[in-house]
Amino acid sequence: MDFAPDTTTREITRRVRDFVTDEVLPAEPVLAEQLAATPDGWSFRPVVRHLQATARERGLWNLFLPPGGPVGARGGGLTNLQYAPVAELTGYSPKLAPVAMNCAAPDTGNMELLAHFATPEQRERWLDPLLEGAERSAFCMTEPAVASSDATNIATRIVRDGDEYVITGRKWFATGAMNPDCGLLIAMGKTDTGAARHRQQSMVLVPRDTPGVTVVRGLTVLGYDDRDHGGHAEIVFDDVRVPAANLLGGEGEGFAMAQARLGPGRIHHCMRALGIAERAMDLVRERATERVAFGAPLADQGVVREWLAVSRIETESLRLLVLKTAWLMDTVGNKAAMTEIQAIKIAVPRAVGQILDRAVQVFGAAGVSGDHPLAELFAGVRTLRLADGPDEVHLASLGRAELRRRAPFLTRPAPAHPSPEGDLT
Amino acid sequence: MDFAPDTTTREITRRVRDFVTDEVLPAEPVLAEQLAATPDGWSFRPVVRHLQATARERGLWNLFLPPGGPVGARGGGLTNLQYAPVAELTGYSPKLAPVAMNCAAPDTGNMELLAHFATPEQRERWLDPLLEGAERSAFCMTEPAVASSDATNIATRIVRDGDEYVITGRKWFATGAMNPDCGLLIAMGKTDTGAARHRQQSMVLVPRDTPGVTVVRGLTVLGYDDRDHGGHAEIVFDDVRVPAANLLGGEGEGFAMAQARLGPGRIHHCMRALGIAERAMDLVRERATERVAFGAPLADQGVVREWLAVSRIETESLRLLVLKTAWLMDTVGNKAAMTEIQAIKIAVPRAVGQILDRAVQVFGAAGVSGDHPLAELFAGVRTLRLADGPDEVHLASLGRAELRRRAPFLTRPAPAHPSPEGDLT
Amino acid sequence: MDFAPDTTTREITRRVRDFVTDEVLPAEPVLAEQLAATPDGWSFRPVVRHLQATARERGLWNLFLPPGGPVGARGGGLTNLQYAPVAELTGYSPKLAPVAMNCAAPDTGNMELLAHFATPEQRERWLDPLLEGAERSAFCMTEPAVASSDATNIATRIVRDGDEYVITGRKWFATGAMNPDCGLLIAMGKTDTGAARHRQQSMVLVPRDTPGVTVVRGLTVLGYDDRDHGGHAEIVFDDVRVPAANLLGGEGEGFAMAQARLGPGRIHHCMRALGIAERAMDLVRERATERVAFGAPLADQGVVREWLAVSRIETESLRLLVLKTAWLMDTVGNKAAMTEIQAIKIAVPRAVGQILDRAVQVFGAAGVSGDHPLAELFAGVRTLRLADGPDEVHLASLGRAELRRRAPFLTRPAPAHPSPEGDLT
Amino acid sequence: MDFAPDTTTREITRRVRDFVTDEVLPAEPVLAEQLAATPDGWSFRPVVRHLQATARERGLWNLFLPPGGPVGARGGGLTNLQYAPVAELTGYSPKLAPVAMNCAAPDTGNMELLAHFATPEQRERWLDPLLEGAERSAFCMTEPAVASSDATNIATRIVRDGDEYVITGRKWFATGAMNPDCGLLIAMGKTDTGAARHRQQSMVLVPRDTPGVTVVRGLTVLGYDDRDHGGHAEIVFDDVRVPAANLLGGEGEGFAMAQARLGPGRIHHCMRALGIAERAMDLVRERATERVAFGAPLADQGVVREWLAVSRIETESLRLLVLKTAWLMDTVGNKAAMTEIQAIKIAVPRAVGQILDRAVQVFGAAGVSGDHPLAELFAGVRTLRLADGPDEVHLASLGRAELRRRAPFLTRPAPAHPSPEGDLT
Repeated sequence: MDFAPDTTTREITRRVRDFVTDEVLPAEPVLAEQLAATPDGWSFRPVVRHLQATARERGLWNLFLPPGGPVGARGGGLTNLQYAPVAELTGYSPKLAPVAMNCAAPDTGNMELLAHFATPEQRERWLDPLLEGAERSAFCMTEPAVASSDATNIATRIVRDGDEYVITGRKWFATGAMNPDCGLLIAMGKTDTGAARHRQQSMVLVPRDTPGVTVVRGLTVLGYDDRDHGGHAEIVFDDVRVPAANLLGGEGEGFAMAQARLGPGRIHHCMRALGIAERAMDLVRERATERVAFGAPLADQGVVREWLAVSRIETESLRLLVLKTAWLMDTVGNKAAMTEIQAIKIAVPRAVGQILDRAVQVFGAAGVSGDHPLAELFAGVRTLRLADGPDEVHLASLGRAELRRRAPFLTRPAPAHPSPEGDLT
Repeated sequence: MDFAPDTTTREITRRVRDFVTDEVLPAEPVLAEQLAATPDGWSFRPVVRHLQATARERGLWNLFLPPGGPVGARGGGLTNLQYAPVAELTGYSPKLAPVAMNCAAPDTGNMELLAHFATPEQRERWLDPLLEGAERSAFCMTEPAVASSDATNIATRIVRDGDEYVITGRKWFATGAMNPDCGLLIAMGKTDTGAARHRQQSMVLVPRDTPGVTVVRGLTVLGYDDRDHGGHAEIVFDDVRVPAANLLGGEGEGFAMAQARLGPGRIHHCMRALGIAERAMDLVRERATERVAFGAPLADQGVVREWLAVSRIETESLRLLVLKTAWLMDTVGNKAAMTEIQAIKIAVPRAVGQILDRAVQVFGAAGVSGDHPLAELFAGVRTLRLADGPDEVHLASLGRAELRRRAPFLTRPAPAHPSPEGDLT
Repeated sequence: MDFAPDTTTREITRRVRDFVTDEVLPAEPVLAEQLAATPDGWSFRPVVRHLQATARERGLWNLFLPPGGPVGARGGGLTNLQYAPVAELTGYSPKLAPVAMNCAAPDTGNMELLAHFATPEQRERWLDPLLEGAERSAFCMTEPAVASSDATNIATRIVRDGDEYVITGRKWFATGAMNPDCGLLIAMGKTDTGAARHRQQSMVLVPRDTPGVTVVRGLTVLGYDDRDHGGHAEIVFDDVRVPAANLLGGEGEGFAMAQARLGPGRIHHCMRALGIAERAMDLVRERATERVAFGAPLADQGVVREWLAVSRIETESLRLLVLKTAWLMDTVGNKAAMTEIQAIKIAVPRAVGQILDRAVQVFGAAGVSGDHPLAELFAGVRTLRLADGPDEVHLASLGRAELRRRAPFLTRPAPAHPSPEGDLT
Repeated sequence: MDFAPDTTTREITRRVRDFVTDEVLPAEPVLAEQLAATPDGWSFRPVVRHLQATARERGLWNLFLPPGGPVGARGGGLTNLQYAPVAELTGYSPKLAPVAMNCAAPDTGNMELLAHFATPEQRERWLDPLLEGAERSAFCMTEPAVASSDATNIATRIVRDGDEYVITGRKWFATGAMNPDCGLLIAMGKTDTGAARHRQQSMVLVPRDTPGVTVVRGLTVLGYDDRDHGGHAEIVFDDVRVPAANLLGGEGEGFAMAQARLGPGRIHHCMRALGIAERAMDLVRERATERVAFGAPLADQGVVREWLAVSRIETESLRLLVLKTAWLMDTVGNKAAMTEIQAIKIAVPRAVGQILDRAVQVFGAAGVSGDHPLAELFAGVRTLRLADGPDEVHLASLGRAELRRRAPFLTRPAPAHPSPEGDLT
């Protein structure tokens, strides 16, 4: 066991760190101005395009792409363990850094899906523009009418009709789909309601301008419409027809592909959230030192010290759990790392949400206002506790896994050793 | 000791209940439509005006006004204890019911200030239109540049110059001040920076259209601009001159008047928040019963039952503490009830915030969206933990009071008896 | 609604307060000495007998007994609402004050059972000595082999055989049964395993010296054997024969009687626990003021103030909920107050346990030692979260009740009004 | 970064695992019997001696001793990182496994002190018998009269008088000192009250049978006297004279040596506590599967699953933080790892205490009884939150360290890289 990052990690994080410091942080107020000047648009503002160009020049592009496979060579060649601290650094400025480096959700997950499961023709048509940052994509899974965390509830139908698939259903929270640059919708629906529970679902690639597709509206999350990166759309599919060749993977493989997509995505979300926690702690440190009330800086009073201590402990311990999860994915595979992925999906947004909640208190009214980043970060991390299923679904699943363990602690292999069961020890 | 509400309470709550049920709840979707149709306005939408007319007809107008004093006869004649459950009922639909009955913050607090401290001339000019609902008002205390929970930090200056006062400073989170109907700003500033800590502050009545007043912008709280009831404004006072007769109370009395204003206001906030908790529980009950995941209603799974139980216990116990606080205000006065007022100001928003947080989890993505009331309620109650000073300021103050108690428990008077010290037992 | 205690309450609490101050607190070190001198005994030490004599002289005897019924005249004539603050005061010194006034569990509950359900002959034989304090009693419900919080699990059998009942089973945590003065065991078992779930159980009165009764051992709770008041016994009933006349109530009425017994008992437990909380706060206040570390009293540092504030808020709000529950029992009956009883049974031990946990931290090593009362109080209150069923059973039950509510908040009667459904509003 | 344990770790943990499984767990009921048979003794029972012989035969002796230094060769040659999972395994049976392998507190810390700071003569006289397990030792730091977490409060005086030191003071919670095999007391006191704050303290080696030493009594922690491993003693030093050669290290080095002692000790405590958490989870899993209430196993109801999930997540993330701390101690030294050591000292006992608290709820009354290990484990882990200073002292210190950070996140070296500041990133 060795906790020192390797040379590659040290080198890439240094470069990303420099990029975020030199380019991204100064761009934050520029984005705010451009958003204020164009309040109605949903597409990237010019500063994003500029940062993307800079990131490409610096070789900080598509770093999320794991090595290997048909398109791995077009990424940074980083393992999950090496990419994790990169994602954390981008979380320090989460509205700009990830998208600047073409490492933003949901496109990363969609690109991974296409890299793994698309045919060469599909890759050429859909994946290449995404890798270039020329297009954007959306993932259409959640539905307003049912509890979508249970995939068997999905009501959207995908029916084969000759050479075509016909899609009918209503989706929402399709992140990014309000962006006019969004060309691709990956739609999940049922092709066979009579199959086994997890073999009923399939995915099809739907051009956003296909007749029958209606992008109804942008939704808000806790008051934010996130229009800077394409919002969250409600979309109606009304007898939408696509060529049969637009099926991604095989019929009935939708659920398995969705699961495969979520693994790395969760790691990325969690690492970015830890970067958000670091940002919050930096903000609190600065505010608590400068702001004076009742005759002394906030830092000298009450509970701010205890808050920072607790925030630090949680950040450090959860970062290690995320890194170990990344290492497990690299060494024993995403499937074997399933329970760890679930664990961090639950724990990190909870802890970072609390860190942000305390930071808001330190900032007073400014903390909930739009003048400091905290309020929007708070809303975003709060939403992570629901994205890809609410905490409670994952807690129940993790608890069941724990109850299923066949052996007590003493008969299990050495702690931290990757086990064939992929469980948490 | 008797926990049964009196006849007046039973009668008035029945009438308010009917009003909220028959008129207010059906108006919620109407307000949503009218807001969508006029996204840029900050004034009351027509449905509010209609509800106000109905409330007046039903005799449900200015119920918050305590009996007695020069204007008490224009209210409902209710004690704080009798008004508390009325406020709770209005919290069930907090965007509409309070304003419909002319019982909404910040006007209620402002009207109380004027009722207590204004001269007859000031009352005629400023209070009467507020009592009629013809005008709106804003309270300008918080400042962006300092920790305003410490009133001695206030940087705004109010300087006597001949027959005028000259006001210079920057305020923010002046709720309601974006509303074009808002005619009156009550500005707090320092008239004498050399006086004792709590004798430096004064209040002046400033017509919103006075030269030098600039309403800079509407602020957001967790993404919401609250434009339906006039938003939260940042306001610059640049050499603003008002007649000396616009001083409210005497010079140096600003701090004491602010404290007096906050007592009943906090009771109202807390009771409305408990109404919000009841709304959340009703929503959860309905959702958990109807929504099915993994083969059973949410109500049959996991932790929803435990959540409802905990929510119920907290709501019941805190409601009693608020009611007792109201009773103390009625029987021994606002000042003697100070520690209880502080206690509920801390405890209720914390508990209701947790109730809403759990409710959001039950609703999934819908819970953070704009399609259900939960997200906006969550943001609003989160903000209550900062309004009138962050929890931590009040906890420290309450803790100091506890440490100052001269006598151990056994030597104190009977529990729940109003004590001359006004402390919590 | 009126939060002022009535004259009776003020008068009785003044007298109890004086008794605890003048007699009980000075007796605490005496008890400690007597326990150290007789480490092996399980009976009352002399100081208890002395205090009992004093309490009788002062007319502070059997105050728990509600007025009315065949034996009500032998108590203090107090309603539940009037008795509640008395119980709280006895909680301030929980090892001595309750037993000194013949108001200690489990005898109070057993006396109530006998007062309500015993025949005149049974009362004369069993209740009178208890009312006199001449004997002690134990309640035998919990069993080691099954989850006894589900009464249908009870494995003990009570079989009619001619003029006798034959009891076979194993019980534990029969509080008080190690005391040689304990003459009566009230044993719960099944008389008819084929009856409806809650009609299978019956209770019989078993003299502790009946052949076949083996008091196996005294159990510990978190390391304490509680031998000063008779401990917690494991008891085997091996073909124990008692006359048929020893049946309490009717066959099949055991469950209903147990429920009836638990209501007032829970109120008493909760009020005493609040007295413990007051004791803990007094101890913390004193310690934090006197003890110096890192250059200042503990009270001036870190989180002690915040802890005291939170402890105070919880104590005040929960005390009101307990008082309201007592009032409901007085006005609409124990059954209609069932959900409130359940609510306080959950909430009070949780909150007081946290108050004690924080107090222990303030006291450092002394807090877990036997030199200060905190450790034993902590252990006792921790156990309350399990006594009469673990929190989780009651939370699930309360949650189900909440889900069953037929009507949303707005259609329910006025808050705090006793409702025919006996629910929490 | 690599999370796989090395070959040495895998090999040694396999052997310790076998030892605990084959020898220690079966010895638990034997110890209980031997304790019941000799309730008054404070020395090791025969089963401990037997296990020690077995452990030595298996080469599982003094494994805690780090390699290097004058006595390193007599230990297992394990780094802190390699020893950590060994300590965790011994925590699975914490009353027997650590002492069986001569790896129990407080002797491990005392042996480390002697190994680092003792003269060869002192080592021969005092260390050798400890390494052999022939004697036991106690560390006398905490005092009843002052807040000892602030070392400058220490009131015990150590005065040089010719060739002797004279010690006067009162200590308590000297763990192990009731054991008749305890030959050595390491006493901390002030040799120079006029020196700088952390240069006033010194340590002397005091044979337990020195005239003037009075072992007053054994203290209890939450009701337990821990007599199986020598209890916790109160000791009076009344003009106790020892040769000047008994000074450990130099005068004024007491504080620094105490700090050095605590580092590895905290790692060991934390790892053992994680082993306790694993034991609790195994017990819960078994109980929840077997125990039936209300028609289903506990595992199928309510919150047991969620509890297990949360317990698992906390155990995994904190284990990694402890392992990283051990690695830092190995790579950059104990001093540079100070903040991490403080972090785990706070976080692990808190989390494991919660895990045990929930486990107790699952077990019902059995959970607080002496029939299952949970109650005693709960009491022991609760005490860890006070041992070596209460959480709050460490939280304040960690918070101050956080506020002192000179640089925001982005300018710090790569995550998880050992930094020269030894801080948590």
